[in-house]
Amino acid sequence: MNEDDGGALEKLKGRFATIADLGAANSVLFWDQQTYMPKGGVAGRAEQMATLSRLAHEMLVDAETGGLLDTLGEPDAATEEGALVRRARRNYEKATRLPSRLVERLSRATALAEPAWAEARAEADWSRFGPHLERILPLEREAAEALGYGDHPYDALLDGYEPGATKVRVEAMFEELKAGVVPMIRAISERGDDAKERGAPLRGDFDEGAQERFGEEVITRFGYDWSRGRQDRVVHPFCINFGGPNDVRITTRFDEGWLSPALFGTMHEAGHALYEQGINPEYARTPLGGGTSMGVHESQSRLWENLVGRSRPFWSHFYPKLQRAFPNALDEVDPERFYRAMNVVSPSKIRVEADEVTYNLHIIVRFELEVALLEGSLTVADLPDAWNTKMEEYFGLTPQNDAEGVLQDVHWAAGLFGYFPTYAIGNVLSVQLFEEAVAARPEIPDLAGEGEFSALLEWLRENVHRHGSRYFPEELVERVTGRSLQTGPYLRYLKTKFGELYELG
Amino acid sequence: MNEDDGGALEKLKGRFATIADLGAANSVLFWDQQTYMPKGGVAGRAEQMATLSRLAHEMLVDAETGGLLDTLGEPDAATEEGALVRRARRNYEKATRLPSRLVERLSRATALAEPAWAEARAEADWSRFGPHLERILPLEREAAEALGYGDHPYDALLDGYEPGATKVRVEAMFEELKAGVVPMIRAISERGDDAKERGAPLRGDFDEGAQERFGEEVITRFGYDWSRGRQDRVVHPFCINFGGPNDVRITTRFDEGWLSPALFGTMHEAGHALYEQGINPEYARTPLGGGTSMGVHESQSRLWENLVGRSRPFWSHFYPKLQRAFPNALDEVDPERFYRAMNVVSPSKIRVEADEVTYNLHIIVRFELEVALLEGSLTVADLPDAWNTKMEEYFGLTPQNDAEGVLQDVHWAAGLFGYFPTYAIGNVLSVQLFEEAVAARPEIPDLAGEGEFSALLEWLRENVHRHGSRYFPEELVERVTGRSLQTGPYLRYLKTKFGELYELG
Repeated sequence: MNEDDGGALEKLKGRFATIADLGAANSVLFWDQQTYMPKGGVAGRAEQMATLSRLAHEMLVDAETGGLLDTLGEPDAATEEGALVRRARRNYEKATRLPSRLVERLSRATALAEPAWAEARAEADWSRFGPHLERILPLEREAAEALGYGDHPYDALLDGYEPGATKVRVEAMFEELKAGVVPMIRAISERGDDAKERGAPLRGDFDEGAQERFGEEVITRFGYDWSRGRQDRVVHPFCINFGGPNDVRITTRFDEGWLSPALFGTMHEAGHALYEQGINPEYARTPLGGGTSMGVHESQSRLWENLVGRSRPFWSHFYPKLQRAFPNALDEVDPERFYRAMNVVSPSKIRVEADEVTYNLHIIVRFELEVALLEGSLTVADLPDAWNTKMEEYFGLTPQNDAEGVLQDVHWAAGLFGYFPTYAIGNVLSVQLFEEAVAARPEIPDLAGEGEFSALLEWLRENVHRHGSRYFPEELVERVTGRSLQTGPYLRYLKTKFGELYELG
Repeated sequence: MNEDDGGALEKLKGRFATIADLGAANSVLFWDQQTYMPKGGVAGRAEQMATLSRLAHEMLVDAETGGLLDTLGEPDAATEEGALVRRARRNYEKATRLPSRLVERLSRATALAEPAWAEARAEADWSRFGPHLERILPLEREAAEALGYGDHPYDALLDGYEPGATKVRVEAMFEELKAGVVPMIRAISERGDDAKERGAPLRGDFDEGAQERFGEEVITRFGYDWSRGRQDRVVHPFCINFGGPNDVRITTRFDEGWLSPALFGTMHEAGHALYEQGINPEYARTPLGGGTSMGVHESQSRLWENLVGRSRPFWSHFYPKLQRAFPNALDEVDPERFYRAMNVVSPSKIRVEADEVTYNLHIIVRFELEVALLEGSLTVADLPDAWNTKMEEYFGLTPQNDAEGVLQDVHWAAGLFGYFPTYAIGNVLSVQLFEEAVAARPEIPDLAGEGEFSALLEWLRENVHRHGSRYFPEELVERVTGRSLQTGPYLRYLKTKFGELYELG
């Protein structure tokens, strides 16, 4: 960067602050749409969100942004300001490649598709959603072409959620995961356990208010700051921040007949929220003021949900509290049985209910289908059948209907092609980071047994959270663990944990 | 308007649609700020709202807006499109006359004044707020000069809330109101009733949930459409719409020791909401897509709150239901006693708790003071004394402190000079419109006795609501009632209702 930039850096920051405010406003509109908006608001909200997206896009791609970036020259990414300019340039370049008209059409198409998807899923009626996907898919193809790519159009979309990731490397990761996981699943299923019986302790009669209070207690212990966040009920949970670390909200789905969705869902979303609440507040309203990628984000949610929330130390502290919260349902259930219940391994049809061992296979199904849709080797009309075929291939299961099949996830309705692999990246990275944290702070597991998580949170804050988007994901992983993303720790973790649970020897 | 405008009308509509979307988004941000935002969000939300306001203002005053209006020429206000262009021009001209430096100084001054006012009121300490008003007042004078006026600077400010209204005509209205109301108040107070005892049935122990359900039932009967709205809890209630008739929300304050705030507050806000829900949906995202003035808006809220909600027919239907909702508190209270309780006339210090007879005197106090401030015949330093003198003159009461005196309303802190008269206009107009409605649909009072309000709502929809901002307030009143705004119906209504209640003969 030039030393004498004539105030270009301040001007660039000003532009990005306005863009961030428009983005934050759009997030508030989205949060409201998902939580409290009456159904009459659907069409108007779609217009409002499209307008804010368009204005933010126009401001980002404006020649003045490009001029300021030119003035600032090649940033030294080792400095904070250089990293800011580098992210700004990435955002600018990605955005200038997408025509405004395309951005607006995508935004409007998905705003209409999402409620249609919700209805379609509720009625298990693919025909209500198919036409929306028919409109979205060509727009995604157009976006991939406009963004440009090296090997494959999928790379262009994937890079939007996971900077630097490619289809080829994701495929290689998936091959390693399959090689490690498929034999485990076979060995477990050959034991012939009754998964339903084994998971029964999580089913029963669980008062919603008591579930909510227990979840609040858990994530308060994790370190979630309620003065900078809140929790609301939604159908499809998410975590969202409004332009900085000081208003980061989570959302939850409660099921009075089943503990898992709210219990693990709350920990999961809190994991995302701890990341956002921990970002350097000085990065707010700049291109550094958010998580660096979806994969790194997911590593945080999965770390708290699985490596903490499905571990023996965690439950040695919290299980007596849970029993007190639900005496009728849990008095007869000993801690070990409860621990086994939350760690049942069983091929299932629903991704968000999948266990740690089979989860990534769900991602592989979606990845293969969206690559085929994008390439045109699969049509939207054939998608439900193709889905069912893949489910048979990977899980030996056929969905009863499209609600528990191709309609289960909102992502395609939201135009999130290329997003799914970030879940698998998050799973794999969560263990790599957790191993590193425990190596640095060996007291972490013991403290978890006392309901104390500050050492873990401090380590994550210092090494991951505070940096926001300062480092690209691969740089961050290398910086923190000294290596690139590895499946080794993840597969070892699965083998140790589930080998013991299922006596695989 | 020229026939061949080269698409100028469509372009103008497009600009105003974007401006409307920014306004709607800002309204969502405000609603969230007032209802659910965690306190950590305060600073970020202020930035976001300032950014959206600035972008909307920039787009409105942009030379392109002026160019399009020039191309379109003088609109024929008799047509819908002409009315749209006329409103667009008014908005443009008002915005361009205010220098952006002045807008910025006003916005900064009021942003600092509002929290200072809240503290000053909490502590009953005028000295904390006075200096802020010293800064705001000259800016209001500057704004009046910049906006321009015929007779008096007050006209320039008043016109911002009530297009076409003037100080002279408002004063004439106030003289008529005083002449009609002051003798009534004297006659009532000479009877020496114990107002506290008379109002006692509204005080007691009223479960919040039961209050909420009762309010919901009432406004559902009024015709409030929940699929296009919702109700939330706030400290300072308001009604808000997000850019059209399809998402119009109300907010309520509940007091478990006092029925009035939630009971009449819900009807009041629903009155505003019925107006917004009834506007022609084609006007959404245009300058016609909102209520035409604050006064006409207030006429709708007061009509439902007072002419319906404090009437005998209404309660002949709803009182048995209310008794069932609160058996402990109301079983011993007969309908007539309850009706008298909600219609107690008693000079009081607080505007928002005032009865129908004395309410406008509160407005007159504020109007006279803000005119004097603006003219410079009253200094800010002398305002608290002047307030107390007026309260003595009009009510025979002296506030114990400035919290229940000059500090009770937020309006001056918010820079809303010229707003107060719209409350009185709303009161007066509510009766003029209601009389007209009953003349056209004489079944209205009987139907109210059956909890049936569709005839009234239909008439309001047809004559007032659907037009949005198509007509200026005076045109609307003339069009609907064949006359200008009249105090006659209002004063007759008060004399009949309270003459009977207080046996004034």
